[in-house]
Amino acid sequence: MICKIEKQSGVAFTLKKGQQLKVIDPIGGQVSDMVLFNASDTREKISSGKTLDFEETILITTNHYLWSNRSNKMMRILEDTNGRNDFLLAPCSPETFKIMYNYGGYHPSCFENLYTNLKQFDIQPDDVPTAFNIFMNVQFAADGKLSVLPPLSKAGDFVLFEAEMDLIVALTACSAEDSNGGRFKPIHYEILE
Amino acid sequence: MICKIEKQSGVAFTLKKGQQLKVIDPIGGQVSDMVLFNASDTREKISSGKTLDFEETILITTNHYLWSNRSNKMMRILEDTNGRNDFLLAPCSPETFKIMYNYGGYHPSCFENLYTNLKQFDIQPDDVPTAFNIFMNVQFAADGKLSVLPPLSKAGDFVLFEAEMDLIVALTACSAEDSNGGRFKPIHYEILE
Repeated sequence: MICKIEKQSGVAFTLKKGQQLKVIDPIGGQVSDMVLFNASDTREKISSGKTLDFEETILITTNHYLWSNRSNKMMRILEDTNGRNDFLLAPCSPETFKIMYNYGGYHPSCFENLYTNLKQFDIQPDDVPTAFNIFMNVQFAADGKLSVLPPLSKAGDFVLFEAEMDLIVALTACSAEDSNGGRFKPIHYEILE
Repeated sequence: MICKIEKQSGVAFTLKKGQQLKVIDPIGGQVSDMVLFNASDTREKISSGKTLDFEETILITTNHYLWSNRSNKMMRILEDTNGRNDFLLAPCSPETFKIMYNYGGYHPSCFENLYTNLKQFDIQPDDVPTAFNIFMNVQFAADGKLSVLPPLSKAGDFVLFEAEMDLIVALTACSAEDSNGGRFKPIHYEILE
C-alpha cells in the first residue's frame, strides 16, 4: 500500500528488521528528510558522522549502509534510481528560514515535521539528528563550498531501504524552497515485507 | 598558561563567553577532536549539520562559526594558521578500529577520551556528537570519495576560537594511526581572557 506524505508535512512509524521501505518522489524534484532511531532504545540513532566514516564517501547510495551513533547498521540501501542524496546538512528549521533567507514569520520546516511526529515515541526536538536527505542535491566544490540545487529526481524515482534492526522512522516532504526547485510536492512511501 | 594533552588522551573544561581557546599542534601532524556543549543546558551541543548548512562549506576555518543543534553560535574561529580541519567524520571509537582496520583487542580512541572526560558534567557516551576535528586532513574527491591523509599542520600551528556562549569543551589528542601520520603526539591548549 502506497502512503502519501502531503507537501510540507511528515510522518513517523515503526519498521521491523528485514522490512523494506520504498521512498518515492511521485512528481519529481522533491526532497524527503529521514531520521532513524533504534525502536528498543531511542538514544541510538542515525549518524551522519559514523555513516560517512564507515562508507568512506559523502555520496550515500545503492549498497551503502546507514549507521548509528553506536556504530551499528540501521539500514541498507538496496536500490536508488536517482542516485543523489545528501547527508551533510541539518533538516531545515525555523532558524534556517530566518538566518539564511531573512524570512520573517512562521515557515513550515522539516525539523518541526520531524519532532512533532516523533513526539508519540517520546523523542524530543533536541534528539533529532542530522537527517539523511533523500533526493537532496547538494553539490560540493573542490574548495568545500556547498550549493543547494534543485533535486535531479524524476517522477517515480525511488530509494529502497532494508531495515537492519527494529526502527522508528520519521520522513518528511521537505519544506525549503531552495531544496525543492521552489515548489512543494508530496512524497510517497511503501512498506514491503 | 599552556596546558598539555598527553598523546592518545583527552580533557574537558568550561569556557566562558568571550574567552578564547587556542588549540596548538606542538610537534606537527597531530589531530585534536573537539566537542562543545552549552554549559547551562548540555542538550544543546555542537552540530556538524547546522554548521555546514549555515556556513555553506565543508571546510570550516577562520571567520566561520561553530553552530549548535539549536541554531545558536557556539564559537567563532578567529585565526587558523593551518587552515585544514574536518567536520565530516565521527570521532574514532573502538568500533572504528574493529570495523575499518580489523584491529583486535583494546585500542584507545577519541570517543572514549571524550566521554570519560565529559562524565564529570553528566554527559553520557550517547550524547557525544560528531566532533570538530582540528588539523584533520580529510580530502574529498569530486565523486564524494573520502580519504584520511596525514595532517598538514606544522609545529606551532594553532586554531584560535572565541566562545559565543558559556561552554563545556572536550578536546583530545587523537588516537587513530591513519589520522595522525602513524605517530601519536600531544596537543597543547591555552585559555585566554
